[in-house]
Amino acid sequence: MKATIKDVAHEAGVSIKTVSRVINKENSVKDETVKRVTQAIEKLGYEPNKAARNLAGTRSYTIGYVYDNPNAYYVIGMQNGILDECREQGYELVIHPCDASAANICDELGAMVRKSQLAGLVISPPLSEMPHVLERLTEMAIPFVRIISGSFESKENYASIYVHDHEAAYNITQHLACQGHSRIAFISGDKDHRSTTERLNGYKAALSDNDIRFQPGYVYEGRYSFETGVQGAKQLLQLDNPPSAIFACNDEIAAGALFAARLLGVDVPVQLAIAGFEDSPFSRQTWPKLTTAAQPTNDIAREAASMLVNNIAAQRGTRAKDTRIGHFHFEPQLVIRESTQQPYEQT
Amino acid sequence: MKATIKDVAHEAGVSIKTVSRVINKENSVKDETVKRVTQAIEKLGYEPNKAARNLAGTRSYTIGYVYDNPNAYYVIGMQNGILDECREQGYELVIHPCDASAANICDELGAMVRKSQLAGLVISPPLSEMPHVLERLTEMAIPFVRIISGSFESKENYASIYVHDHEAAYNITQHLACQGHSRIAFISGDKDHRSTTERLNGYKAALSDNDIRFQPGYVYEGRYSFETGVQGAKQLLQLDNPPSAIFACNDEIAAGALFAARLLGVDVPVQLAIAGFEDSPFSRQTWPKLTTAAQPTNDIAREAASMLVNNIAAQRGTRAKDTRIGHFHFEPQLVIRESTQQPYEQT
Repeated sequence: MKATIKDVAHEAGVSIKTVSRVINKENSVKDETVKRVTQAIEKLGYEPNKAARNLAGTRSYTIGYVYDNPNAYYVIGMQNGILDECREQGYELVIHPCDASAANICDELGAMVRKSQLAGLVISPPLSEMPHVLERLTEMAIPFVRIISGSFESKENYASIYVHDHEAAYNITQHLACQGHSRIAFISGDKDHRSTTERLNGYKAALSDNDIRFQPGYVYEGRYSFETGVQGAKQLLQLDNPPSAIFACNDEIAAGALFAARLLGVDVPVQLAIAGFEDSPFSRQTWPKLTTAAQPTNDIAREAASMLVNNIAAQRGTRAKDTRIGHFHFEPQLVIRESTQQPYEQT
Repeated sequence: MKATIKDVAHEAGVSIKTVSRVINKENSVKDETVKRVTQAIEKLGYEPNKAARNLAGTRSYTIGYVYDNPNAYYVIGMQNGILDECREQGYELVIHPCDASAANICDELGAMVRKSQLAGLVISPPLSEMPHVLERLTEMAIPFVRIISGSFESKENYASIYVHDHEAAYNITQHLACQGHSRIAFISGDKDHRSTTERLNGYKAALSDNDIRFQPGYVYEGRYSFETGVQGAKQLLQLDNPPSAIFACNDEIAAGALFAARLLGVDVPVQLAIAGFEDSPFSRQTWPKLTTAAQPTNDIAREAASMLVNNIAAQRGTRAKDTRIGHFHFEPQLVIRESTQQPYEQT
């Protein structure tokens, strides 16, 4: 089997990024490290893709946005945020939705980058959270910025925008507990999005801090879709001891849960509180309006594009490396609306 | 003032497209016409933008999608349809949302086309319905396909996808009349979208055919937004003789109207029928689900991209001119759902 950049990094005991820097002869690497990496490359017979590396050096002023997300509001928010920055910096945007679950996803992205001669990429979840995708892009030496769910910087040290889903989910659950709820259910989004795990863990942490026992039967595993909300709420509301509050992993799921409650004649918020996540237009257009966590998608996207353009310029030597560049953090803020405002009827 | 391509066309008594063909030395123009156009160009001292013309000849495999639309579902549907065709044909897509009402919109588009070296453009309303935008693009000799509302081919003979809004709106209004409604109101979308006028005229035609007098007081002029639906329905429902049915110019407006009905304690569909237009996910996620006209946005977009790629290939001489190319028609189909199904309570 052909050696990959990952094998080289492992052999040399450094990050993939460092191997990439050595391959691209960047000045920022210590001599000793260069030596170690070079030895590892020789030992393993690793051959970086030269064609790809050469292309990455062209003076393209087009960046790409790579995503796999069925949420129209999220995608449009991301595109518009990136475009705001592009306009200011004189870049164009190519969009590339793709199927993150496809077996050949790395080859697809590789071919796209080569063909389009893109200057760099912005990548959103779940693609931004898939190690083999990030390794391939690093190998191709194309600058990228990823948006990921979480608050901890990974050891690979990729340029990243972190969204603190855990903390925001904690705050939503805390709000429900403060409203007097102890039977709080959770409807999850797609398993392969890290946001699902982060939000579930935030929910569990808040339950624990409020001395509420976590009940696996109160977790419905679904996808980021309206249909999941309908199915999940239907199942939860028909339990022998149904929840009095539902925390849905995003607003679309929450809207589906509202729909199911209406179908079953359950009054929201009187008999059931429902909260979403994202603060998409959805959350203001349901009846009642949804309590949610405001995720500033436009700002997140713009920050990612800004970081990317800076990194591209630094790589080309046309701008000094911005020391701020590397990591940026956002924490979605609790927005309380009618869907959770009235304490449910105690029986 | 500098002469434009429009002045030349007027002077020579031909279409803008024909002038463009003469300038670009295409073979398809009769000698006599070439002579007339050439004389007009000399008489007026017209200077076509040479730089732009040269660029249009490059072998770019990137097309652009130009739009000004706040409807996330519409935009995503358009993008995905265009991308389906791009993938098959080996093209990339650059997106370019812009402000159609900006004074310098033509210059902005012109600069974008020059800078990005795009092979061609897909343009949706309202930009696709603005003569000065189309004239400028014709002058730059960049192939484009426009999507427009209407069923009649314009004399300029631009490559177009026609969406028969008039007929679809007629069918929705006819459906409401058949349900026993005679007090049918209309909430309009943006005035600068031709779809608004087409749908209003379809509504009027159906009223007339059902011997229902058109009442200007039953028309609320707004925008393609949820807020317009809320405001419009509030105002209409508070009239002395309120409507028993509302035809909203798109699903988002209809969802807003539903929200207002709920706010005022008006039961839909028992006391009020509401219909939308588009068949966006919205229309299946409201309570009750919305009667609408299914506008196949994905297919429309894909057809536009297919026509564009064919025209690009024909211009480059790499593919024989597809005789079918030029015009394509879609008629949105009536979809009856719960929001209009129950006859309202006669008083």
